[in-house]
Amino acid sequence: MKDFFKLISSSDFIALFDHFSPLDCETIPLTAARGRVLAEDIVSREALPPFSRSTMDGFAVRAADTFGSSESETGLLTLIGEIAMGVSGQAFSLRPGQAVRIWTGGELPQKANAVVMVEYTQAYDDETVAIYRPVAPGENVIRVGEDFAKGATVLARGSMLRPQDLGVLSGLGIIEVPVYRRPRVAILSTGDELVPVDQVPPPGKIRDINSTTLAALVEEAGGIPVICGICGDDLDDIRTVCTQALARADILLLSGGSSVGRRDFTLQVFQALPETEVLVHGVSIRPGKPTILARQGNKALFGLPGHVASAMVIFSLFVRPLLRQYSGLGTTLGLQTIRAITAEQIPSVIGREEYVRVRLTPQADGSPPLATPVYGKSGLLNPLVRADGLLPIGRDVEGFDRGTETPVFLFP
Amino acid sequence: MKDFFKLISSSDFIALFDHFSPLDCETIPLTAARGRVLAEDIVSREALPPFSRSTMDGFAVRAADTFGSSESETGLLTLIGEIAMGVSGQAFSLRPGQAVRIWTGGELPQKANAVVMVEYTQAYDDETVAIYRPVAPGENVIRVGEDFAKGATVLARGSMLRPQDLGVLSGLGIIEVPVYRRPRVAILSTGDELVPVDQVPPPGKIRDINSTTLAALVEEAGGIPVICGICGDDLDDIRTVCTQALARADILLLSGGSSVGRRDFTLQVFQALPETEVLVHGVSIRPGKPTILARQGNKALFGLPGHVASAMVIFSLFVRPLLRQYSGLGTTLGLQTIRAITAEQIPSVIGREEYVRVRLTPQADGSPPLATPVYGKSGLLNPLVRADGLLPIGRDVEGFDRGTETPVFLFP
Repeated sequence: MKDFFKLISSSDFIALFDHFSPLDCETIPLTAARGRVLAEDIVSREALPPFSRSTMDGFAVRAADTFGSSESETGLLTLIGEIAMGVSGQAFSLRPGQAVRIWTGGELPQKANAVVMVEYTQAYDDETVAIYRPVAPGENVIRVGEDFAKGATVLARGSMLRPQDLGVLSGLGIIEVPVYRRPRVAILSTGDELVPVDQVPPPGKIRDINSTTLAALVEEAGGIPVICGICGDDLDDIRTVCTQALARADILLLSGGSSVGRRDFTLQVFQALPETEVLVHGVSIRPGKPTILARQGNKALFGLPGHVASAMVIFSLFVRPLLRQYSGLGTTLGLQTIRAITAEQIPSVIGREEYVRVRLTPQADGSPPLATPVYGKSGLLNPLVRADGLLPIGRDVEGFDRGTETPVFLFP
Repeated sequence: MKDFFKLISSSDFIALFDHFSPLDCETIPLTAARGRVLAEDIVSREALPPFSRSTMDGFAVRAADTFGSSESETGLLTLIGEIAMGVSGQAFSLRPGQAVRIWTGGELPQKANAVVMVEYTQAYDDETVAIYRPVAPGENVIRVGEDFAKGATVLARGSMLRPQDLGVLSGLGIIEVPVYRRPRVAILSTGDELVPVDQVPPPGKIRDINSTTLAALVEEAGGIPVICGICGDDLDDIRTVCTQALARADILLLSGGSSVGRRDFTLQVFQALPETEVLVHGVSIRPGKPTILARQGNKALFGLPGHVASAMVIFSLFVRPLLRQYSGLGTTLGLQTIRAITAEQIPSVIGREEYVRVRLTPQADGSPPLATPVYGKSGLLNPLVRADGLLPIGRDVEGFDRGTETPVFLFP
């Protein structure tokens, strides 16, 4: 089979995700919608604000009545009342020369078109207010529908809902929203050497680190982890568990098989599944070269490296963009990228992309942080806890000299 | 009372948080610990790996037996068996001149101290393997405890747990962790003009936007929102609700009272609460000047501006750092900061800090994004959904010219 596959680049890998579609839509309460992605445009069903409001404490007026007012020549208006908060201002209707006391957020009376700030007024008595400064029509007022007209698009399909977006929707009385379903991600660790994390491993065995790590990465990326446990190196067993997992998930992450022999094993399992097409068998990046991607309808099957450090790189570069594609965000990385300066020379090999774990050290003068590579043998965990992000080195670049400014993807 | 207070700077405001202590500690399962903060150092109770492991597929050897081997002069070793995955390699003990087949992750046999990669070998028959390249002692091997020695500090108190950290802890069999309790944040909106978001506001009233927005901001920052609903402008009512709220929360966020009159109202409520000291009454920043901070023991009471846009700025600048202080992270902003270039001139006034909402536009050539101010009348919501972050302008700066490179705090 090997001849059918050649190593592909990371950009070609991500381009394959165009074949996968966003998941179906569900309607959820606004209170549960933070971080979710809109599956439809949201259109305002009413005008916001629903009435013309004052943005200041002061006096609602007909603007023309204030023209020419100044400190030296104050205008005098007849005070006909006060609009208490939460009470309709429309109970009043201003005649020329009249004013009404109003508070921030209060509804303007009829025929009023501006508000004079209290700072530029003086109430002479209960019936007269002096105006020190003119106001233009519309000044210190938000007109009905000025924020959102009825029928206006408030937020577009594909928007990830932030706290402020939820606030605006709640202001419009939109308390349920159509969002893409969160992708369900089945996580299966394989290997005769693995025991669950709550067990003390007997000689020759170790605990399954990948399930815990991948589940947390899935959660962080907005997916729902479905832990499938550990499967020994038995093709029939793995195929059975994969079939069960795919019945209740959108993505399957099968990790393990870092050995040359077991890599082909994962491939055999995927090829033995019905209606399943292997799309990728090997990526020209380091770490993570032996990654496999297969497809069963709109479901994706990943064969991830067994080393958690490599699995994490592949998750960040590929699984995460696919989760975003399923969620309606497109195949973007979704990782914060900052510019950093290499603290030492970082060598690389021409012909493959490299992703170097780096630790970032802020610089006092406000210039970009220093990126120091966190090296370590393949399979060590220690470098993982010390690294802040990944520094990508392109396939046509022979590493970076010390002092090079270059982007770093921050771990979330 | 006003005379006792003067506007303080944002850095003086944040310095007050040193008076507040991290919350108490609780022990939770590792599977629920993503994003939580360690309340104690975590020390490894065992060596990791628990045995010396191969990092490659190949042959476990005594390194000295390979010295001098080359393509032209291959060394021949006697193959005495294979270490299957998950089986203890210690069942074998190498004599000089012997080798054992081993897989990535397999346990080394006794007396072996290196692994020759399979690529540099050739198995002649079931009992003989040819070696093309010498290996140094320790090569392609992770020694017992090389990742973490028994008793080593794995993660320090104050670390926020990321997916990879959880993975490492699970590898050490640490399935429960001591973390700081998540802060509980009571959210109370006040104002006679407010109705709940699921109601159609009658004339003169509007929906309560702040509760939804603040609850989502609290959640995002790792706190637990405790929604206390809406309270009309009645001092006794508000005081009663505040007392109840403080009984079950660590922070109280009281918003509303954007009017001059109602601002003092919030102050009066805080002053009427027992054992409560008002620390701040006004900050020299824009927006958000009328912010109030009070303290009741280790609990904090915030009087936030009524406009959601201003409340959000105060949340980002002050509430968020206090939540981080309670959570053991120190009084840092915790907002991602990037460098951006002003797309137009941004004026400001000397003598107060300004936080300008900006929209960011990526630039094709990889240089920092353009930051365009999103202006809008106070009280408008529309600018909130269009902005990506806040651009700070210091109190001694008279704004920025177009084309200035300066930091921007990204909204989370």
